[in-house]
Amino acid sequence: MNPAAPLDNLRVVLVQTSHPGNLGAAARAMKTMGLGRLYLVDPLCAVDDEARARASGALDVLEAAVSCRTLAEALEGTALSAACTARRRDLPHAAYTPRQAAPLLLSQATSAPVAVVFGSETYGLSNEQLMQCRWLINIPANPDYMSLNLAAAVQVLAYELRCTLADAVIPLPAFDAARHEEIASLLGELERTLVEIGFLDPAHPKRLIPRLRRFFARAGLEKEEVAIWRGILKAARKASRQI
Amino acid sequence: MNPAAPLDNLRVVLVQTSHPGNLGAAARAMKTMGLGRLYLVDPLCAVDDEARARASGALDVLEAAVSCRTLAEALEGTALSAACTARRRDLPHAAYTPRQAAPLLLSQATSAPVAVVFGSETYGLSNEQLMQCRWLINIPANPDYMSLNLAAAVQVLAYELRCTLADAVIPLPAFDAARHEEIASLLGELERTLVEIGFLDPAHPKRLIPRLRRFFARAGLEKEEVAIWRGILKAARKASRQI
Repeated sequence: MNPAAPLDNLRVVLVQTSHPGNLGAAARAMKTMGLGRLYLVDPLCAVDDEARARASGALDVLEAAVSCRTLAEALEGTALSAACTARRRDLPHAAYTPRQAAPLLLSQATSAPVAVVFGSETYGLSNEQLMQCRWLINIPANPDYMSLNLAAAVQVLAYELRCTLADAVIPLPAFDAARHEEIASLLGELERTLVEIGFLDPAHPKRLIPRLRRFFARAGLEKEEVAIWRGILKAARKASRQI
Repeated sequence: MNPAAPLDNLRVVLVQTSHPGNLGAAARAMKTMGLGRLYLVDPLCAVDDEARARASGALDVLEAAVSCRTLAEALEGTALSAACTARRRDLPHAAYTPRQAAPLLLSQATSAPVAVVFGSETYGLSNEQLMQCRWLINIPANPDYMSLNLAAAVQVLAYELRCTLADAVIPLPAFDAARHEEIASLLGELERTLVEIGFLDPAHPKRLIPRLRRFFARAGLEKEEVAIWRGILKAARKASRQI
């Protein structure tokens, strides 16, 4: 395998970016480190002259960017996604520094697409968007001023990925990771089943679904496991209907 | 000593910068990592509105920048200086990656001023300027496109310095891990439930239980999650008995 190949599986997903200069600068940051797959989710600005000027020699990355309406669309097909966020959230996600995350991201990227997600300059990512990602990444920063520019954060992540690539990457055991949409669909089915067997009251869901979502995120599902869980859920529904 | 104190001895020296935006962005990159001492050698542009806008919350760093006519002036009083350069030079300098250089720079900075020097956007540093520095720093980059934006290079260096200073480890969220016997008991209950709802044939169990065991092992259960799963299993059995 081409040693840089895992980078081809790495998507940089920018959500609701509002400054064109940041689009270009992010593309440039990516290309300097050998990343090329840029996804723009619902951008609040156009790819204009400023974006192109800031992209400099990375115009190809900028122009090849994939436009998506939703984050789910950008995550489709990924086996792992990590949201870069400055704030420590009251969320139960696993959180890593870029240095801790890079080997894990690359390891997964040897076999399947992986996404690193960055929120808007002003608002970051919503909790709903964060919950779609399996991990958080916190860039270590000055506690008195943690506000990295968007493209600067992309640069730091891309740099860590490149440095880590130069080290040995241990490929994951050859299990086939479930894709984002397969997991989303399984979790939907789980929720419906819990309602049907009388465990979940849709009127008072409390924190049950986020907690289960978190549990499955931590485990990291394989395709075959998704099939097993689907089988279990189906059997549970069928058993509860034998009246 | 204040653990961040070595950063107070770290100068970021920008030589003949030509884009005001880069001055501001460099100041911001510095402050996000806790660096505050910016030196501008013979800048080819003014600190204008664009510079201030890009500095964002790091206006204090930008406004406190020390203006110098020559590199020698900016290096005065330093015990160590390293020039950041993309090109490998035919120079007798020691060359380090940011990761290799950071501990050495910080170590020196505990006792004396240290400088990291960045050249102009277009021409980099002249050989004469490089020869004034003790070391070179090469940021690992894509051999096909090594051209980091100036402020992005400052961000990478500042990030490495901060990480090295902190060796930042994000503590795991304080959740209470389930104990061995609680998990063993849950897996036993899962197995009985799967038989009861008709998903598992005890005469032909195949590899189902080992596979589920492996899945739960990977996730790493918390006490509260054990309780949730027990609740789900109980609800599934109860629903299947409503005959």
